[in-house]
Amino acid sequence: MNEIKLFAPATIANVSCGFDILGLCLDSVGDEMIIRQVSEPGVTISKISGQDLPLDPQKNVAGVAALSMLEHLNTNVGFEIEIEKKIKPGSGIGSSAASAAGAVFGINELLGKPYTQTELIFFAMQGEKLASGSAHADNVAPAIMGGFTMVTSYDPLQVTKINPPKELYATVIHPQIEVKTADSRSVLKQNVSLKTMVQQMGNFGGLISGLYTEDYNLIARSLHDEIIEPHRSILIPEFDRVKEACLNNGALGSGISGSGPSIFALSRGEETAQKVAAGMQQVYQGVQVDFDIHISKINQEGIKIL
Amino acid sequence: MNEIKLFAPATIANVSCGFDILGLCLDSVGDEMIIRQVSEPGVTISKISGQDLPLDPQKNVAGVAALSMLEHLNTNVGFEIEIEKKIKPGSGIGSSAASAAGAVFGINELLGKPYTQTELIFFAMQGEKLASGSAHADNVAPAIMGGFTMVTSYDPLQVTKINPPKELYATVIHPQIEVKTADSRSVLKQNVSLKTMVQQMGNFGGLISGLYTEDYNLIARSLHDEIIEPHRSILIPEFDRVKEACLNNGALGSGISGSGPSIFALSRGEETAQKVAAGMQQVYQGVQVDFDIHISKINQEGIKIL
Repeated sequence: MNEIKLFAPATIANVSCGFDILGLCLDSVGDEMIIRQVSEPGVTISKISGQDLPLDPQKNVAGVAALSMLEHLNTNVGFEIEIEKKIKPGSGIGSSAASAAGAVFGINELLGKPYTQTELIFFAMQGEKLASGSAHADNVAPAIMGGFTMVTSYDPLQVTKINPPKELYATVIHPQIEVKTADSRSVLKQNVSLKTMVQQMGNFGGLISGLYTEDYNLIARSLHDEIIEPHRSILIPEFDRVKEACLNNGALGSGISGSGPSIFALSRGEETAQKVAAGMQQVYQGVQVDFDIHISKINQEGIKIL
Repeated sequence: MNEIKLFAPATIANVSCGFDILGLCLDSVGDEMIIRQVSEPGVTISKISGQDLPLDPQKNVAGVAALSMLEHLNTNVGFEIEIEKKIKPGSGIGSSAASAAGAVFGINELLGKPYTQTELIFFAMQGEKLASGSAHADNVAPAIMGGFTMVTSYDPLQVTKINPPKELYATVIHPQIEVKTADSRSVLKQNVSLKTMVQQMGNFGGLISGLYTEDYNLIARSLHDEIIEPHRSILIPEFDRVKEACLNNGALGSGISGSGPSIFALSRGEETAQKVAAGMQQVYQGVQVDFDIHISKINQEGIKIL
C-alpha cells in the first residue's frame, strides 16, 4: 500500500464543562485526504480544494504535523498530501485539527503503524501550534481516537477515551463570522473562585459519569459552563437565543464549540437532533449572518479509511 | 422491627483532586449505633460510649440529623439512639458524618424506607452543619451510598455513586493533633488560576475514568491535588515525609483526608496497603504525636445492618 484515502472528522472541544480537556468526534462533517508515499523525501502538499490554504508544508497545519513526525522517524521517506477541505477554517469545530490528525494518521498507516495513538496526537498537536499558537490536543485527540476524549495531562501527554452512549447526537450551527483566537482568549478571566471551580468540577464529573453509565439525565444536568461561556458567548451573535431554542427543542444541553463561533447541542436520538437544528435555523434566519448547520452521530472510531 | 443495629463507616473526602465533591467509604473503621423506635415522640440519645459527646439531641450531629428527618415526616414517632463512637472526632475521616448518616439511615429502615438515599444524605447534611458550620455532603454521601461518591450539585442535591475497583485499599494515618476547621479553611486561597484549574480538572477526570475502567495506572497518575494540598499540608506534621513513604511503599497516591489532619493513601491490594501503613508508622515513630493507622478495603455498600 502506498496510498491511503481518509475521512478526517470535525470535532467539538470543551463540551461546556471540560475547558481545555474534553473533546468529542463528529461523524458527518470532515475533510477528505489522500496521503501518498513518494520517492522524494519530505512532505509535499500537492492539492487543496474547497478552501484557499497554503500549499507550503511549513505553513500548513497538515504539513507541519507530518514534518514533525518525519523528523522523529529520521528516515528518507517522503509523502504527498491532497486535501479536500470540507470543514471551514475558523469555525470552531477543529478544522486545523482534522487536517493535522489526518496527515499523521495516514502516514502512520502507510508505514505500518509504528506510532501509538498518543504519539500521533503529539505530532498532530504541532500542526495545532501553527494554527493557534499553542500545541493543544483537545481537537486532535477526538479526531484520532473517536468518541469523547479527555486530555488529562500534557507533560507527559495522557489522553483517555470514553465511548459515548449510542443514541447521542450533536447538532452544530456555524455562524460565518470571524472570531479572532486572541479575542476569544482575551475575554477570559485568568482567575476563578474556588466556589465556581467546585461547581464546574461537579458538572464535569457528572458529565463523565453520565457518559460512562449512559445516563442521559445526568448528561443533561451536567452540560453547564460556569466559567468560559458567560464571557465568550458575547462574541457570538444570538448565542443566548440559539441555546434557548436548543433546550426548548429537547436538547440535553448546548454551549460553545471550542472557542467558537460555532454553537453545539447534544441530544438523545437523531429526531431530537433534527428538531434542535430547526430551532437553531429559525433563530438565525433573522440574523444577517451566513450559517451552516450540521447534524451528526458521535463518531465512535475517529479518522476513517475510505 | 423496632430496633436496628448499624455499622456507620468512616469516609475520606476530597480524595486529592476532588475538593468538596469526591468521597469514598471505608470498611474497617466506623461507629456502631443502635436505633430504637420508642413511644415518646422526638429523639433521645440514651448513650454514647468511646467519646465524650453531648447527649442533647440539639447539640449532637446524630440528633440534629434525626430531628430534621422527623420534622419533615411530621409525625409523632420517637427514636432512641445509642452510639458506640469508634471514629475519633476531628480526625478528618468523617466522624460526625458517620453518626449523622447512621441516625437517619436507621430511622429510615425502621419506618419502612420512606426516603431515598439522596434524601437521607440531605437530612444527614443537617448534622454536618452543626459539626462544621456548613451542610456539606462529601462525607455523608459515601457513608450512606458506599463506594466513591461525587456530589455534583447542591441545588438541587445530586449525588453519583461510582463502584470502586475491587482491589482498591485505603491506608489512613490519624495524627492526634487538633486542626481547627477555621484554620484549615483560612489557609486556602479563594481564587485559582485558569491554568491550575485545568490541571486539577485533568486529574479529576482521570481519576473518575480510572475508577470506572479499573485502570490502576490512570488512578495513580491522577491522584494529585494542585490546589488545596500545598496550603493545607503545612498544618500536618511530617506530611511530605509521610506522603513520600506511601509512594515509596507502592501506594497509587496519597493526600489529605478531608480537611485533615489524617493522611490517606490508596493502594492496589491489601499487601501494598499494609506496607504503606508500615511506611507511615516509621515516619511517625520519630514524631511526638500519638497516631492511629487504619487499613481498609473500599466499602462497596456504605452503612451496614449488623
